Amino acid sequence: MPYVRNCWYMIAWDHEVPREGLFARTVLSEGILLYRTRDGRIVALRDRCCHRLAPLSKGRQEGDCVRCGYHGLLFDANGRCVEVPGSDSVPENARVATYPVAVRNKWVFVWMGDASRADTALLPDNFSCDSPEWDYVPGYLHYETPQQLICDNLLDFSHLSYVHEKTLGGSTAIAQARALIEPVPGGIRVTRRVKNVPPPPYYRGLKSFAGNVDRWFVYDFLLPGTLLMHSGGRPVEDAEDDLSRAVRLHSCQTVTPETETTSHYFFQQSRRVGDGDHSIAEGLYRSLVVAFEEDRAMITAQAREIARDPEAPMLALAMDAAVVRFRRLVQSAIDAEQEGGERGSGSGSGVGRGSARLGATLTH
Amino acid sequence: MPYVRNCWYMIAWDHEVPREGLFARTVLSEGILLYRTRDGRIVALRDRCCHRLAPLSKGRQEGDCVRCGYHGLLFDANGRCVEVPGSDSVPENARVATYPVAVRNKWVFVWMGDASRADTALLPDNFSCDSPEWDYVPGYLHYETPQQLICDNLLDFSHLSYVHEKTLGGSTAIAQARALIEPVPGGIRVTRRVKNVPPPPYYRGLKSFAGNVDRWFVYDFLLPGTLLMHSGGRPVEDAEDDLSRAVRLHSCQTVTPETETTSHYFFQQSRRVGDGDHSIAEGLYRSLVVAFEEDRAMITAQAREIARDPEAPMLALAMDAAVVRFRRLVQSAIDAEQEGGERGSGSGSGVGRGSARLGATLTH
Amino acid sequence: MPYVRNCWYMIAWDHEVPREGLFARTVLSEGILLYRTRDGRIVALRDRCCHRLAPLSKGRQEGDCVRCGYHGLLFDANGRCVEVPGSDSVPENARVATYPVAVRNKWVFVWMGDASRADTALLPDNFSCDSPEWDYVPGYLHYETPQQLICDNLLDFSHLSYVHEKTLGGSTAIAQARALIEPVPGGIRVTRRVKNVPPPPYYRGLKSFAGNVDRWFVYDFLLPGTLLMHSGGRPVEDAEDDLSRAVRLHSCQTVTPETETTSHYFFQQSRRVGDGDHSIAEGLYRSLVVAFEEDRAMITAQAREIARDPEAPMLALAMDAAVVRFRRLVQSAIDAEQEGGERGSGSGSGVGRGSARLGATLTH
Repeated sequence: MPYVRNCWYMIAWDHEVPREGLFARTVLSEGILLYRTRDGRIVALRDRCCHRLAPLSKGRQEGDCVRCGYHGLLFDANGRCVEVPGSDSVPENARVATYPVAVRNKWVFVWMGDASRADTALLPDNFSCDSPEWDYVPGYLHYETPQQLICDNLLDFSHLSYVHEKTLGGSTAIAQARALIEPVPGGIRVTRRVKNVPPPPYYRGLKSFAGNVDRWFVYDFLLPGTLLMHSGGRPVEDAEDDLSRAVRLHSCQTVTPETETTSHYFFQQSRRVGDGDHSIAEGLYRSLVVAFEEDRAMITAQAREIARDPEAPMLALAMDAAVVRFRRLVQSAIDAEQEGGERGSGSGSGVGRGSARLGATLTH
Repeated sequence: MPYVRNCWYMIAWDHEVPREGLFARTVLSEGILLYRTRDGRIVALRDRCCHRLAPLSKGRQEGDCVRCGYHGLLFDANGRCVEVPGSDSVPENARVATYPVAVRNKWVFVWMGDASRADTALLPDNFSCDSPEWDYVPGYLHYETPQQLICDNLLDFSHLSYVHEKTLGGSTAIAQARALIEPVPGGIRVTRRVKNVPPPPYYRGLKSFAGNVDRWFVYDFLLPGTLLMHSGGRPVEDAEDDLSRAVRLHSCQTVTPETETTSHYFFQQSRRVGDGDHSIAEGLYRSLVVAFEEDRAMITAQAREIARDPEAPMLALAMDAAVVRFRRLVQSAIDAEQEGGERGSGSGSGVGRGSARLGATLTH
Repeated sequence: MPYVRNCWYMIAWDHEVPREGLFARTVLSEGILLYRTRDGRIVALRDRCCHRLAPLSKGRQEGDCVRCGYHGLLFDANGRCVEVPGSDSVPENARVATYPVAVRNKWVFVWMGDASRADTALLPDNFSCDSPEWDYVPGYLHYETPQQLICDNLLDFSHLSYVHEKTLGGSTAIAQARALIEPVPGGIRVTRRVKNVPPPPYYRGLKSFAGNVDRWFVYDFLLPGTLLMHSGGRPVEDAEDDLSRAVRLHSCQTVTPETETTSHYFFQQSRRVGDGDHSIAEGLYRSLVVAFEEDRAMITAQAREIARDPEAPMLALAMDAAVVRFRRLVQSAIDAEQEGGERGSGSGSGVGRGSARLGATLTH
């Protein structure tokens, strides 16, 4: 399956890119090199020298430039070769592709499509990743599965009752609850309220509850694969607008295809500053890692099964409404990009009608 | 190469399937889940939820049912979905395939073809696996080679002189001896008598012989890949019907394709109860494991060589008579199934003329 | 890409082939068995029994013959089967291919093409591998990359300044120096002189220099992938013909394709006997291993990048003159062999016009 290209993909946490030196990660099957210029700006170049295709990340940073470690070509932050050792001139076509970069709230994004369409207004609102009111520990997992299967997982929380029975779930009532699905710009909103259930195991340490709680999960799931979620739980006896004794969480998660069969999973879940000290956030992070390993084990087993019989049909059930709608959004976006005749590989190629139509598709 | 489907394939030793809980193994490239209902009967389901293709074996047994560990669908022992969490109704087509199961003498079999043709009269007579007169330790090896190469190995015992020189063989006379080959229902019978040879190394501990022995190997090799063998050795001076001082063994072995390139190898070799205590059977088992590792190393090397040049021809020699005849039986069975238009995937599909003709082929 | 076949490929160091017993290595995707007859001559047979394709190297040497370890066929040093266990006669076509073998100066070669064209006059002059005037430690590395990329590396020493900055290089002046490229029979000669540079790190222990040195690298790079090099350095104040205080080295290296994606790399670098004791040669070997690991890391990263986008173009620069010319020689040789209609697989097949034309191509 092709990728949606005209969108921002998270490539790294801000702290992963060193102040000085090179960082490489593959996105949509393209090796990408990140480094900071002396003024702190992050640059993204195709991690592949135009000369003999060696990864530039095996070379070294020199000021605002990067030198290939094989034969010494030097590239500036615009991807232009500015020095060929042993040669007085540099061919015009000696250059590597660059990618538009955006940093928002500790997330570093690259734009994988038509550079002229890169628009920071399209960045997701991951506010709790950089807010004085929220506190968290940043997370990353590598998946040996296609990105789509991980998005599917995040789109249907009925799995919490089974995959995460002893961690995030704690009750079959989550699977029983009907989810409300609505369109939002660039994605869908999923709202699930679960009444009068025991507090889930991972609430331990966050708050203590004498009895049952009402839980809520309200999240936007946005192209290309980003979840932004408010969730929480409050004593059943409290009024709906009384959050004084509630657990309140905000989570930002995004899944970036590394290749067609592997993925990057970035995640965090914030608690409100003031609800205990930072050790609460650390405990939350540990719970999340345990739960996300449960997901990874299941999704990896599922992917293996699919890989050995790729034509096996899936059976769509009522619980798959969000999965089906989001897959349709992805397909529309891909179709629109391809009809528009654009492929948008890195630096500035292919400006077409596709993106405009994509926007239309996502917001109706 | 396609598989013969209308036959029983051993999938497990009886003791491998727990009293309570799930057991999974792949046969003919299909993941299969085994579990026992409360009355002890073994059930075989396709190990793949019809919903999102997760392996059911990652879920859990609930009474006579199994619940998928991903989104909680519940399936009964007939493969019918009986509960979809969050939904009042269950779609008619929410079901997973089942396989006819038979258990005979500690061997658990699944029928991989047209279920209406599953007939326990076709099970092999592995009597020494469950007899008060015979004693053994059950064995299992996993092979990273196609099943066919392991069958080839078992069909030509001339390899005992070379592969097993220091274990089962002990004399080049085995390779020198001519094997008699006869048709039997569903396979061939191979008889090889080796006169006046030193007792092989692995007889040590079974019996002690002052001088040479006469050895015999009489086995049926049956579709899809089962060896049932009487073998032994007696002092050369003893009459042919005098077994009083003889080593007498019975061995049941079967090879089940896991995938096109990997296999399950189940084996045992029984000694007569009364010839020493159970430690004799344990010693025999250890000898066998050593010898079968010799086979596995050789066959794996052979498979690697074939894999990198699949068109390389083999040279048929006189010693290959049984190999050639059995390969022809397999091919006839496959041809008959395919002419009959049947593919027989699990539950009850494709009842055709193929199997009748297969039977004809195998018993003439 | 097909291989050049009508040439000698190094398959082993002489010391790797035991006095008694079997040695196997794959060349051009063919498993090859080496052993010595009782008179010490090395024999090369296809390492694959003609019967069931088991590797003969899993069997054993018996005098001047080799016996297959699977079913016992015995082959003589001409690849003829001379015994089939259990059979009085041996089919005429029971034979395995043989390869012409040559040993020169500790290097063992096989001829992979038309045997009638195997000519020891075509062997490279690796004199320093067996000379009373030169001393070295033999080296071998296995590469998980195609052979061509390793040849490319050896054809352009500008990489010394970057890949080997801290080992063999020590100065960007190597990359700055212009290389002179001339045709020689069967390849090209590359001459690079670097004036007035600091002695490179790996000279430490060889000689001590008070100041800068003039360095030289003069090597022939010959089909199918052999480097024969004189190199060294002398104090800048010494006359060009005064080598009294110079470091003088001779290196013989050759790269043999194992498969299309893996390679054997044989190397040595000799120092003059008399310039210190053997520990100097050992130190030189250790330096070389460190540097060649630097190459391997870079070339492996490059190969991985190419493998995931095989159509990505390379940009030819002035420094690639030798790379381009040698690749053209290889292509001409392959074209000539294929036009000549020869494929030359082992024993004596396909005598054609190709080799004569190949010769013409290489010496103009």
